[in-house]
Amino acid sequence: MSFLNTRYHEDGSIAATLEAVSRGHRILELEGHGDMTMGHISYRDPWGRGLWLKRGNLALSEVAGDDYILIDFDGNVLEGTGLRHIEWPLHAEILKARPDINFVGHSHAHYATVLGASEEQLKPYNNHGVWFAYSPVPRYTATSHIITEVHRAKEVVEVLGGSQAVLLANHGVAFVGETVEEVTLTGVFLEKAAEFQVDLRASGFSPIEPDPVETKEKFDRIYPPKAQDNFWMFFNRKLERYEEFQGPGIATP
Amino acid sequence: MSFLNTRYHEDGSIAATLEAVSRGHRILELEGHGDMTMGHISYRDPWGRGLWLKRGNLALSEVAGDDYILIDFDGNVLEGTGLRHIEWPLHAEILKARPDINFVGHSHAHYATVLGASEEQLKPYNNHGVWFAYSPVPRYTATSHIITEVHRAKEVVEVLGGSQAVLLANHGVAFVGETVEEVTLTGVFLEKAAEFQVDLRASGFSPIEPDPVETKEKFDRIYPPKAQDNFWMFFNRKLERYEEFQGPGIATP
Amino acid sequence: MSFLNTRYHEDGSIAATLEAVSRGHRILELEGHGDMTMGHISYRDPWGRGLWLKRGNLALSEVAGDDYILIDFDGNVLEGTGLRHIEWPLHAEILKARPDINFVGHSHAHYATVLGASEEQLKPYNNHGVWFAYSPVPRYTATSHIITEVHRAKEVVEVLGGSQAVLLANHGVAFVGETVEEVTLTGVFLEKAAEFQVDLRASGFSPIEPDPVETKEKFDRIYPPKAQDNFWMFFNRKLERYEEFQGPGIATP
Amino acid sequence: MSFLNTRYHEDGSIAATLEAVSRGHRILELEGHGDMTMGHISYRDPWGRGLWLKRGNLALSEVAGDDYILIDFDGNVLEGTGLRHIEWPLHAEILKARPDINFVGHSHAHYATVLGASEEQLKPYNNHGVWFAYSPVPRYTATSHIITEVHRAKEVVEVLGGSQAVLLANHGVAFVGETVEEVTLTGVFLEKAAEFQVDLRASGFSPIEPDPVETKEKFDRIYPPKAQDNFWMFFNRKLERYEEFQGPGIATP
Repeated sequence: MSFLNTRYHEDGSIAATLEAVSRGHRILELEGHGDMTMGHISYRDPWGRGLWLKRGNLALSEVAGDDYILIDFDGNVLEGTGLRHIEWPLHAEILKARPDINFVGHSHAHYATVLGASEEQLKPYNNHGVWFAYSPVPRYTATSHIITEVHRAKEVVEVLGGSQAVLLANHGVAFVGETVEEVTLTGVFLEKAAEFQVDLRASGFSPIEPDPVETKEKFDRIYPPKAQDNFWMFFNRKLERYEEFQGPGIATP
Repeated sequence: MSFLNTRYHEDGSIAATLEAVSRGHRILELEGHGDMTMGHISYRDPWGRGLWLKRGNLALSEVAGDDYILIDFDGNVLEGTGLRHIEWPLHAEILKARPDINFVGHSHAHYATVLGASEEQLKPYNNHGVWFAYSPVPRYTATSHIITEVHRAKEVVEVLGGSQAVLLANHGVAFVGETVEEVTLTGVFLEKAAEFQVDLRASGFSPIEPDPVETKEKFDRIYPPKAQDNFWMFFNRKLERYEEFQGPGIATP
Repeated sequence: MSFLNTRYHEDGSIAATLEAVSRGHRILELEGHGDMTMGHISYRDPWGRGLWLKRGNLALSEVAGDDYILIDFDGNVLEGTGLRHIEWPLHAEILKARPDINFVGHSHAHYATVLGASEEQLKPYNNHGVWFAYSPVPRYTATSHIITEVHRAKEVVEVLGGSQAVLLANHGVAFVGETVEEVTLTGVFLEKAAEFQVDLRASGFSPIEPDPVETKEKFDRIYPPKAQDNFWMFFNRKLERYEEFQGPGIATP
Repeated sequence: MSFLNTRYHEDGSIAATLEAVSRGHRILELEGHGDMTMGHISYRDPWGRGLWLKRGNLALSEVAGDDYILIDFDGNVLEGTGLRHIEWPLHAEILKARPDINFVGHSHAHYATVLGASEEQLKPYNNHGVWFAYSPVPRYTATSHIITEVHRAKEVVEVLGGSQAVLLANHGVAFVGETVEEVTLTGVFLEKAAEFQVDLRASGFSPIEPDPVETKEKFDRIYPPKAQDNFWMFFNRKLERYEEFQGPGIATP
């Protein structure tokens, strides 16, 4: 991957981070987040200019080095070429409201969207669901629209609160992270936990409800930073294996 | 793909369109419409002679340049070789009754056929279902037969009305489009929306019912012509990737 | 595939038929019948000596030219090497009782076995289910044992009657055919119809029940001999594509 | 695979056994047990020093020759490099309490974990479930925590009793075997039986309940040692085919 574009010259670390964000996009595709060219991760510009957002008309699996535009928090394009996703306000408003995080993801992951299209609360039925132990995943139900307007994005921000993810009813999900590792893992675990819950409830079996206090202790035990690094490295190896085998680009069935 | 057959000489644009229709067939296979050698798309002849229909005994994934016959609206073969699908009246009658469209698709897409074999109404539970915001998908229940007779085809036409798709109970689906892009996307979204609804309802969760007026506004926002082009291009890239990887022909498991 | 074994010399047509039976085994694997090295098709010896049965310890996907033994109707091995499947009585008794058929298949196809482990009757909810229009598929419930004893096999024969297939409760399925094409298609359609019915009923939707008389007419229309040939050829092409891509042998995930 | 590490020199048979254990890990991955780098098999050291445990930060599909550490029953690392899985007490306590077995497996196999997160009892609805005919699979519900503490491991031991497997509610499963073949097959059949039961019950069909006495007879018939060898060899061939096709390492989707 080469960076011919001069925009990265002012800060080499941005290019390096965007490389990781690109892998994050491609990992999300492999873990069930793909829906044509829908879905995107954004990254808060470290120089305070706004956010780097994946450009449009690319599948998650197609995102590589240069595929970003820099926009300010009002959506003005400052650098980069290509289409600006019309849901940019979702990213801008969350980044503005949440100084604790630097990355925002949005997708239509199948099972998380299924769960989001219902009244069901995501629960820690397995390890993946425990990722959300300290902040249950709320649901935004004010509209089924995609989030293209600032006032809608502000509504989502309010529902999201301090959580790591929010279900967008009849639409998809949004999720955040302080690091690219965190935003990717949050997206991955959200979809895995939703799939588990859908399968568990579809079976008709009576679920066992874990204790909330224990669930937090469980989070502390299974998701310390070194474990998160381990999982992030795993998904990177998996991506590399996949791309070596099938070549880069859109995931084949 | 070479066109040795003289029938295309009179109008080069037909060959070009049929190339796109072939990709439409192969895209439908990748998106879950395959059922052995069942399923076909037809194209209204621009010279008013009738319709170009995929010839028989080929899987959707096997359709390429020359695999069409030209028939008039009474089913007489005017050009081309190979088997005439016995469901030709379904195509002929829809094309006669609907001057607004130029393409008709028919398949046994799994989830759409599951939904069609029930009393359930397809609903806009996610973005894919929103494709049908302006015209709910009706169900044809007069028979479980395949549509090989003109009088049956006329019944389907009546149920279809001005809609983009119709569920054929205990059989499959039919869908239409003004362009090859539109007929393909309609088929794809019909199957995706049905799969989503089956998974949502199988979970036992209480679904959230989107507002019908909002659903139309949502359609306007997410499916303008440029977005449709974007999705059509995505599915073409996906097809190319797949065929580069596995070679052309029947899709491997 | 070479036939070094002298046993085929007396009748070259047997080797040719067994080649087709081997493709039948491998097609069944691709269509969801695989369960480790379980499952087998038998072929009535045209010289009246008994039956040719796939030998043991091979997956359906591994069966090729020489992988058969000839046994008489009492299970004595007349020709060939390798393990005799202990369920040989199932094949012998069905072939003895049903002079109208020459091939017997047995497998643990997932969805057909799921349906067989319940009180549910297989129904013609889609085209695949229509294959059984003239003879509903009965269920053998006298035991959950595999059929290794002649008296159990005779019980299965009684339940099977003149049908094309029988569900073996908590075990698997058996299916028959006059030709290798027919036995293979019967196995394939049994599994596809069962999968359809499982998905339809799991959805919780109210199914539409097709009319039994119409279902027979539908069978006549969609499954004439030339259509069966067409489907058999399709599955052979699919198998070839798959084996070209992945190589022969056990199916990869 | 080369063994440069001197630790194997004192007993060549250990290296040979660990080779088989590595295949066991990779087979479990192919059969649905993979969850990032979670899951591990341990092997009782034949010299009485403790147990050989897969080292951390590797997926089941990545485990090869050297990827083990030798720990004593108090968790002290005696040989080998790499991370010690924090769930080592689960292995140590089971091996201490069960002199009849030499191998312990632990994973988050999807369907077995779904069933484990409910009140449902695993039942012998198909052949795979019959593997557990003589010892129903109990459920450990004292905690949803992973088993990192000796006192928790002792609780699991008590629930496990003389069984071959135990469901760990809201977490995963553990399973044992006298041989590497047995521990692997137990893991495989546990997941397959759970998937079958989930699909059967999700369908809403009324299940047929096999007779417990007959189920034991069925076990004797279908799972004698030579059949177990046959299945173990099958999974080894399948693994080889898969790795020839895709290369070793993390399983591609």
